[in-house]
Amino acid sequence: MGKILTIGIAGGTGSGKTTITRRLQRQFESQVCTLYHDDYYYAHDSLTMEERSKLNYDCPAAFETGLLIRQLESLRRGDAVDAPVYDYTVHNRAPRTQRILPAPVVLVEGILILENQELCRNLDIKVFVDADADVRILRRIVRDVRDRGRTLESVVNQYLTTVKPMHEQYVEPSKRRADIIIPEGGHNEVAMELLIRRIQAHLEKGE
Amino acid sequence: MGKILTIGIAGGTGSGKTTITRRLQRQFESQVCTLYHDDYYYAHDSLTMEERSKLNYDCPAAFETGLLIRQLESLRRGDAVDAPVYDYTVHNRAPRTQRILPAPVVLVEGILILENQELCRNLDIKVFVDADADVRILRRIVRDVRDRGRTLESVVNQYLTTVKPMHEQYVEPSKRRADIIIPEGGHNEVAMELLIRRIQAHLEKGE
Repeated sequence: MGKILTIGIAGGTGSGKTTITRRLQRQFESQVCTLYHDDYYYAHDSLTMEERSKLNYDCPAAFETGLLIRQLESLRRGDAVDAPVYDYTVHNRAPRTQRILPAPVVLVEGILILENQELCRNLDIKVFVDADADVRILRRIVRDVRDRGRTLESVVNQYLTTVKPMHEQYVEPSKRRADIIIPEGGHNEVAMELLIRRIQAHLEKGE
Repeated sequence: MGKILTIGIAGGTGSGKTTITRRLQRQFESQVCTLYHDDYYYAHDSLTMEERSKLNYDCPAAFETGLLIRQLESLRRGDAVDAPVYDYTVHNRAPRTQRILPAPVVLVEGILILENQELCRNLDIKVFVDADADVRILRRIVRDVRDRGRTLESVVNQYLTTVKPMHEQYVEPSKRRADIIIPEGGHNEVAMELLIRRIQAHLEKGE
């Protein structure tokens, strides 16, 4: 395998970064592989479910980012990795791992990936997906209540106590490290096309 | 000539938009042509130099944007246009015009081009080049004092009385219409490459 192109896709909760990631996956199938920062949340097997539910999941220290960086480096060398899997229903790392096969393009997705300077050095293209805070919290409520079985009260409480202050402390400042900022993420066809053409140039010409 | 790709490059004073425009011109030569919104400042032949120097040049009403849109539409149809020329040294439109030949890619550059909704509808890719306000004013001072023969006092006075309030009223809000936002404009190699690849795809495949 020739040179591998790495693309980081960051942005606050509900910004649309997952929509962009999934569209690139559908477009390029086995030619891209993806590492999700969320899968690298630390395991907390010694805590009870209640204790785990009260942890701060929106600060850099919640993630085993060193492992993510090592596995990204492995993929860049063309080696498969066994990535951790995070189970949202129990707020903990799952016992199983997932095999990620190397591909010409590696996507790295997560709210805080641009916060980490060493991780940034491993990303050829650093994208920050942006949306207004009110639009983002509406998307998060729909996702967490409908798709992840959380109560509305717990989502509101978590948002105000950790998600919002951590966004302002870590996520928003990390935007400064972005190479491009994409407003209105997954529904921004012009920006999608720029990313798609860039990836196509890499796949066709190795650039 | 096949379909013509139009790219708007907006951003505040000193943001780096002209650097991006010039780099795309150098890269693609006769395959791109450029319309500068500044060239469409209204003529003020009936005013004295002193009166002209006191006008507000940073609001939408200062520009003959309707003419820019008509000439952009002509270029999109493959017709050459005679664009106006603005002479900064006398704060007025020059008597001569400049012939702009049609090209497969048309760039439109200016601080306020995304402020105009009709102009936006004529732009396939809307780029907003962004930089911090302190960096931008430093660049403007260097440019206006060194390259345009203005006094430091006149630059500071113009900035505080019109450039800054107009930026906040018109330029910054127009960022919401951008398809992509490029931090640190002309020195952002990753973003330059995204634009270059997109233009190459258009030139090679007509997409």
